[in-house]
Amino acid sequence: MATATPPRLTRSQVEEIVRQVVTERLKAPGPGASGLVVHASARHAHLCREDLDRLFGPGYELTVDRELYQPGNFAAKETVTLIGPRSRLISNLRILGPLRSRTQIELAFTDAVSLGYEDVPIRLSGDLDGTPGAYVMGPHGVVVLKEGVIRAAMHAHMSTDEAAGYGVSPGDVMKLRVGGDAGVTFERVHVRVDPAFRLEVHMDTDEANACGLRYAREIGLFK
Amino acid sequence: MATATPPRLTRSQVEEIVRQVVTERLKAPGPGASGLVVHASARHAHLCREDLDRLFGPGYELTVDRELYQPGNFAAKETVTLIGPRSRLISNLRILGPLRSRTQIELAFTDAVSLGYEDVPIRLSGDLDGTPGAYVMGPHGVVVLKEGVIRAAMHAHMSTDEAAGYGVSPGDVMKLRVGGDAGVTFERVHVRVDPAFRLEVHMDTDEANACGLRYAREIGLFK
Repeated sequence: MATATPPRLTRSQVEEIVRQVVTERLKAPGPGASGLVVHASARHAHLCREDLDRLFGPGYELTVDRELYQPGNFAAKETVTLIGPRSRLISNLRILGPLRSRTQIELAFTDAVSLGYEDVPIRLSGDLDGTPGAYVMGPHGVVVLKEGVIRAAMHAHMSTDEAAGYGVSPGDVMKLRVGGDAGVTFERVHVRVDPAFRLEVHMDTDEANACGLRYAREIGLFK
Repeated sequence: MATATPPRLTRSQVEEIVRQVVTERLKAPGPGASGLVVHASARHAHLCREDLDRLFGPGYELTVDRELYQPGNFAAKETVTLIGPRSRLISNLRILGPLRSRTQIELAFTDAVSLGYEDVPIRLSGDLDGTPGAYVMGPHGVVVLKEGVIRAAMHAHMSTDEAAGYGVSPGDVMKLRVGGDAGVTFERVHVRVDPAFRLEVHMDTDEANACGLRYAREIGLFK
């Protein structure tokens, strides 16, 4: 049962490693190359300017820890503590930049259950009305988030050309098949198109674990 | 964010509740009635006679806590502690009865990651050669399990008549579609047939979380 990984990793570190391995195994060889990239997003937070000020102090700026696959997006060095119903919490919740107009917390259902949520709806990014809230704690202060906690709907980023290649438009829904020992087809992959996007599907850690993304032998995105 | 559930539940209690709710919402009204039942199995252990003796003492007999859906199967009151690579552990791992010829530990991938396993293969029940091992601790002693840790392949129990109705044979693979906000089709549902079986699909908690089983609006099993 010996492993190459050092002992006493936190769960989030393990998830980070899994995510990286997935990235390395599946992504196209370099920027601009064709090829479908599927990333498992671990739970994370997007913050608005006002909430960043409250959590980290007025005028605070996020520090880039790692560039993400979509241009301009990054994992910040900064994290927050998320407190859910029944006073249970998740610490070291990663902040992703850049800032957004509304604060949004993306959890897998496993995270939601462990935090004590009865239900967290599957939503597209930014579609936050009527979603559950949370308390968010930073080094400078606390934000009482009235709504903004979601499970992110699976989605595909693609450029205008790639959308044309697939014959799809923004808002369409595609299917993602992950072949392997599990063999799972996800039917509701929402299409997001922007000239600057690179072809990439985002799923959450529950979905990645269920389909064995790490060990996938073939991956296909289709209408 | 108020909920009806009492505070300070353990994760396994929460999972148990989720499992029960799923059961109640989806199962047929009574024994013998037609209707597809899908159950999410939380992580658990099956023990052989020799390992039960070592863990709980010679001649020990399991106590039935709750009958399961398949006749003769039950969740025992007894639990064990599972110790994985890197000395991380899961306590209160439920034992399911009756005893089997080999000890087998069934984990979701999330459990496997949290225990420190690099990989736990997807296997049918009983197909344990070459799978990872673990240390299992009980009140009477410890078992060094050389192999037996698996992610259970999704499977459907069905009677001979139900198999004939679907036009399938033991060992065939069917598909399970779970419709809802996620919309997921699992392609590798292994058919297990026995005259005493009741129609029931077993998935693990990762799969249930990924497809939103609790909130499924339609469920179909097909060839």
